[in-house]
Amino acid sequence: MKVLWNDQVVERDTVKIDIEDRGYQFGDGLYEALQVYNGKMYMVKEHFERLQRCAKKIRMALPYPVEAIIANLNKLIAAEQIQNGVMYLQVTRGVEPRDHNLPEPGTIPGVLTANVTPIERLTQMQQAGLKTVVVPDQRWLHCDIKSLSLLGNLLSLDEARTQGYDDALLQRDGYFTEASASNLWFVVGDTIYTHEDGNLVLPGITKIKTLALARELGLTVKEEAFPVSRLAEATECFETNSVWEVVPVVAINGRQLTAGAGPITAQLQKAYIAAVNDFIEA
Amino acid sequence: MKVLWNDQVVERDTVKIDIEDRGYQFGDGLYEALQVYNGKMYMVKEHFERLQRCAKKIRMALPYPVEAIIANLNKLIAAEQIQNGVMYLQVTRGVEPRDHNLPEPGTIPGVLTANVTPIERLTQMQQAGLKTVVVPDQRWLHCDIKSLSLLGNLLSLDEARTQGYDDALLQRDGYFTEASASNLWFVVGDTIYTHEDGNLVLPGITKIKTLALARELGLTVKEEAFPVSRLAEATECFETNSVWEVVPVVAINGRQLTAGAGPITAQLQKAYIAAVNDFIEA
Repeated sequence: MKVLWNDQVVERDTVKIDIEDRGYQFGDGLYEALQVYNGKMYMVKEHFERLQRCAKKIRMALPYPVEAIIANLNKLIAAEQIQNGVMYLQVTRGVEPRDHNLPEPGTIPGVLTANVTPIERLTQMQQAGLKTVVVPDQRWLHCDIKSLSLLGNLLSLDEARTQGYDDALLQRDGYFTEASASNLWFVVGDTIYTHEDGNLVLPGITKIKTLALARELGLTVKEEAFPVSRLAEATECFETNSVWEVVPVVAINGRQLTAGAGPITAQLQKAYIAAVNDFIEA
Repeated sequence: MKVLWNDQVVERDTVKIDIEDRGYQFGDGLYEALQVYNGKMYMVKEHFERLQRCAKKIRMALPYPVEAIIANLNKLIAAEQIQNGVMYLQVTRGVEPRDHNLPEPGTIPGVLTANVTPIERLTQMQQAGLKTVVVPDQRWLHCDIKSLSLLGNLLSLDEARTQGYDDALLQRDGYFTEASASNLWFVVGDTIYTHEDGNLVLPGITKIKTLALARELGLTVKEEAFPVSRLAEATECFETNSVWEVVPVVAINGRQLTAGAGPITAQLQKAYIAAVNDFIEA
């Protein structure tokens, strides 16, 4: 199995991460996960724009120009002969003796690693949907930064999993923010709600696409936080992320919302897959 | 230079961290930093009790019994011939294909790494003190867990540093929590305030010792959050952590509090160093 290590496609087992990599000691780095369809990365421009925005927010320099990184990721896809898969890419701030102070951008080289794993569309999950539970959002207040400091997300998911649920719906101060690793959407009547961008949610790439598709379909979308107090009014709920695409939430706290995807969720699932098919054929 | 890698003291450059170490991809691990005085780790029991409590909180198994880890750290101190230094130790949940779900404790071995760096008492800093600025506490809500997901702490410090200050005093919802990597204390008249333990602050080992010393000295200590609205009343302020020991905060947001350590801070500094000397001689 080959991976990308900085600017070289190499055998996975030759990669050696340093114990003083700031990614290892501080979670001081960023990542992206892109879906690969038919050998091509989807929404690649949007993913790398986000990576650049996040790098700016944490005052980190990317070790290579974005175009060079994308070219190397494409080499990796070719070397691994991936048709459908997930490209995982992370960049850490680099290696130096442990110090809470950030080194000035560009003074030490960042460490880039990426691997690509074959995966087919999660059709079963997209049909059956997720059983979820509402848990407090105990993550930090920079959720717009796609950082490697992810333990808060993991613990949210674990809280749901240990109670027998598939995923956690996170709420902070009475409003839903996200699921443990997805943007979260509610439907009330014919209006779709999802949390506005800002420091409390990740600006999801699949969210961008889903918003555009919803508007093309003439659906009413409100980018505003959905209050937990209105949960009983929700007739549908779904999650989006690049790997899962559009996945229905069929139950929340034991209350069944829908059997599989509700009508609006199903419409968006269909539109999303059609958009992907257009991309594949383009 | 030698380091501890799992249960072996080895040359630093032979250590190879895997790209799919959960510490590297998720900040999924814990750490401790212990001061070494005269070749002996200080408050070692308390540090390892905290490590065990934190491991429980994140449902992670330590890869070795605590007694074995301590014995190996002592081997490292001997191998590196350290008299006075900082022992840094981290444990990650182990290596497996990237998955937000936590593996059940004990199903994959954790990865332990430790290094020890010589350092002498930071006398200059303990005398001159720190110039600080109040910034929002944007960390997660599990600050009692000493995890590797530290980017929130780093960004707080960076916010202070880029404005020309030495450290950040963090406030959440109108109350001081901690400094960027220390427990935080205020003095009003003859009463000392420090945030009570709980999910908003780290239960510092130096905090335990400082509380005990303050009570021995007959000082009044209130373990309660100090409100930002009362900042003008504070006559002294200081920070504590295992490496810095007791360090005065001499200025906050440009207002000078004291020139060097104020009288109560100085009393505690002296008592802390006396306690360390007792430990060295014991």
